[in-house]
Amino acid sequence: MARAGVGRPRVVIVGAGFGGLWTAKGLAGHNVDVTIIDRHNYHTFIPLLYQVAAAELAPEQIAYPVRGVIRRHQNVRFLMENVKGVDLERREVATDDEVLGFDYLVLAAGSVTNFFGNDSIARHAFGMKDLGESVKLRSHILASCEAAAHEQDPEQRKARLTFVVVGGGPTGVEFAATLAELVWTVLAKDFPEVDFSEAQVLLLEAMETILPSLPENLREYTRRTLEGKGVQVRLGALVSGATDHSVELKDGTVIPTHTLVWTAGVRASLLADNLGVEQGRGGRVTVNEFLQVPSRPEVFVIGDMALSQDADGNPVPQVAPAAIQHGEMTAANILRHIKGVELKPFRYRDRGTMITIGRSRGVARMWGRSVRGFTAWAAWLVVHVAKLVGFRNRLLVVTNWAWNFIFYDRAVRLIIKGSD
Amino acid sequence: MARAGVGRPRVVIVGAGFGGLWTAKGLAGHNVDVTIIDRHNYHTFIPLLYQVAAAELAPEQIAYPVRGVIRRHQNVRFLMENVKGVDLERREVATDDEVLGFDYLVLAAGSVTNFFGNDSIARHAFGMKDLGESVKLRSHILASCEAAAHEQDPEQRKARLTFVVVGGGPTGVEFAATLAELVWTVLAKDFPEVDFSEAQVLLLEAMETILPSLPENLREYTRRTLEGKGVQVRLGALVSGATDHSVELKDGTVIPTHTLVWTAGVRASLLADNLGVEQGRGGRVTVNEFLQVPSRPEVFVIGDMALSQDADGNPVPQVAPAAIQHGEMTAANILRHIKGVELKPFRYRDRGTMITIGRSRGVARMWGRSVRGFTAWAAWLVVHVAKLVGFRNRLLVVTNWAWNFIFYDRAVRLIIKGSD
Repeated sequence: MARAGVGRPRVVIVGAGFGGLWTAKGLAGHNVDVTIIDRHNYHTFIPLLYQVAAAELAPEQIAYPVRGVIRRHQNVRFLMENVKGVDLERREVATDDEVLGFDYLVLAAGSVTNFFGNDSIARHAFGMKDLGESVKLRSHILASCEAAAHEQDPEQRKARLTFVVVGGGPTGVEFAATLAELVWTVLAKDFPEVDFSEAQVLLLEAMETILPSLPENLREYTRRTLEGKGVQVRLGALVSGATDHSVELKDGTVIPTHTLVWTAGVRASLLADNLGVEQGRGGRVTVNEFLQVPSRPEVFVIGDMALSQDADGNPVPQVAPAAIQHGEMTAANILRHIKGVELKPFRYRDRGTMITIGRSRGVARMWGRSVRGFTAWAAWLVVHVAKLVGFRNRLLVVTNWAWNFIFYDRAVRLIIKGSD
Repeated sequence: MARAGVGRPRVVIVGAGFGGLWTAKGLAGHNVDVTIIDRHNYHTFIPLLYQVAAAELAPEQIAYPVRGVIRRHQNVRFLMENVKGVDLERREVATDDEVLGFDYLVLAAGSVTNFFGNDSIARHAFGMKDLGESVKLRSHILASCEAAAHEQDPEQRKARLTFVVVGGGPTGVEFAATLAELVWTVLAKDFPEVDFSEAQVLLLEAMETILPSLPENLREYTRRTLEGKGVQVRLGALVSGATDHSVELKDGTVIPTHTLVWTAGVRASLLADNLGVEQGRGGRVTVNEFLQVPSRPEVFVIGDMALSQDADGNPVPQVAPAAIQHGEMTAANILRHIKGVELKPFRYRDRGTMITIGRSRGVARMWGRSVRGFTAWAAWLVVHVAKLVGFRNRLLVVTNWAWNFIFYDRAVRLIIKGSD
């Protein structure tokens, strides 16, 4: 590469999500050669993927070309490639086309949906872990309503209009709420020939509560708000299997449906399994307080791939703010290591939790306080817009939200399939 | 259907493009039962598809859900289905799932790319006739540059950076111009490791001129403007074949390239071939002055599918304004036919031609006058924004164009593949 300096430490970053991109930003302009690799040419704002699936935002509004971010930085280059494997011993990263040597490696390949080994669920469930999956789910939901519009059999029609969301964590709650609003405020107007009192949005949670990390009063508020929007919340409902027209629970209940959305778990990118290092819960790589693989000071694992701990010894949650903090700290620590200066241990600054429940409603823990209703929703809005990459995306997302809010509309309700 | 009146004439419209949608609008609120069928759930603003392919606009910005247009009209229903065939004798339209009887039929299924029977071109060329095709081409162009970025072989690299556009009509000219700007003003900044002086954008035209319908001075201006932007215009260049890494001309020239974009011709939707009626050039259905199939007064064929004539006996061009006029006239004539009133013959009002040549440049024939440069471009802009369906789309398109214009940016340069 023309821009590579001779003898400068080579840093390879795998993944251009929050962890990887913020590491690259932290290393920009310093005396290192940085290569950031991703199989997509864009950074995705993952916390808003569920809004793409619900026809609320266009895919282009929550993605930003990686080259657009790094092009002002002379010492950072981008490689759109699929990473096949990593040889920690030889200090090499292998992509489909080439092998890159590194002096420092930052693994930030994120997480994938965890079906906990259940093949029938893996085959039939929709995930929301990247833009392609979210667009596919959006098209499927809209196409199900189109199919219902000319389905004569009442049982079949009800199955087409039954949407099952599994997982009572933040993603499941946020998606179920906005899906319910899509169904009963937007699609009900679009399909006058369909009786949407037949439609169902179910939120299934295996445990006895949704949002277990929040205090009791916020959980209760969330459940009531969801039910007010028409979502049926079923607790203690463990999904045991699926077909293309049904979901089966462990207690034997069979729910006829063509739409199973799985938000019930993530696991570390499969790349973690082939490193030959210690892995903890969800396949995450065990790292030390500096986010290094123990005994490999030149290898950092960050974001959803890493099992790092906060000050109290609890695992750091797999959320965007943690990945960003990981990235910033890792960039600084790599520069310290090069200089021979002592590294700083990672300290997670928990900025709180914010969850929307559809239009104008939310719950949040901020500065140790519980907030709910409009205030929590407004705070969520401000924080998420502020964190989007690219001013234009911020502008378009705000425009779209305002539009949808004022007109009870979802303008991007298009069924777009690959090259069809 | 709950909303269908008893005994009201049933009008079936095949296609929700300009012709079909404007027919439906013209029939809305009248004493007829209208069913409009399309395989997509959205109306596409086809004249701007090339801007989606050039990463200028997002797909969602030039499409509008059909149900959003018709939902205020009680007597119009939408069916998302693929039409398999039409039985004119039995007055039935067959979709993949059902058979619909009609009293009046409006065939507005548009046109498809015409490869003139050349299989090797059909296999390897990219078309721009629907959103899926345009997104696929956008992804391919961007992925070609990514591939060039780590291609070591100079010949291979040049082939990746060579983009061949075939057809010197309006679409070919508009696309070649904006593609050249994408390559040399945007991608050249995105890919500092690539030498874009190796890149080529070629516009191949089999005839001895581009834009044959325009006067000589405008053609000359267009050619010079294209060349000023870096487009190589080759006249008398007849493409005879293609592989996945080359294009071959009839004179034996072989151009190494991975990107062949075909805008050199359209033909009527294949539905026209199975009607058992007279077809003219490009498979278009020969219609009378009322746009009816001769001897079938209840069957109208409009838009790109129809071979209709203007006042001078020349074929009406296959452009959006003609399809809109067809649709409006057909709605009115169906209502006249129901009332037993004499139909009005179609008179094409040629509103002129407007073609952009990238940023701030264009050529136009308006009110019998030749216009070029900034004025033609500004007129094009106003007309195209005004005709977009949906105020929100107008707003977003203008925002995007302004953004790209000011910042020399193409924000939607994302490589998105199906469910990848």
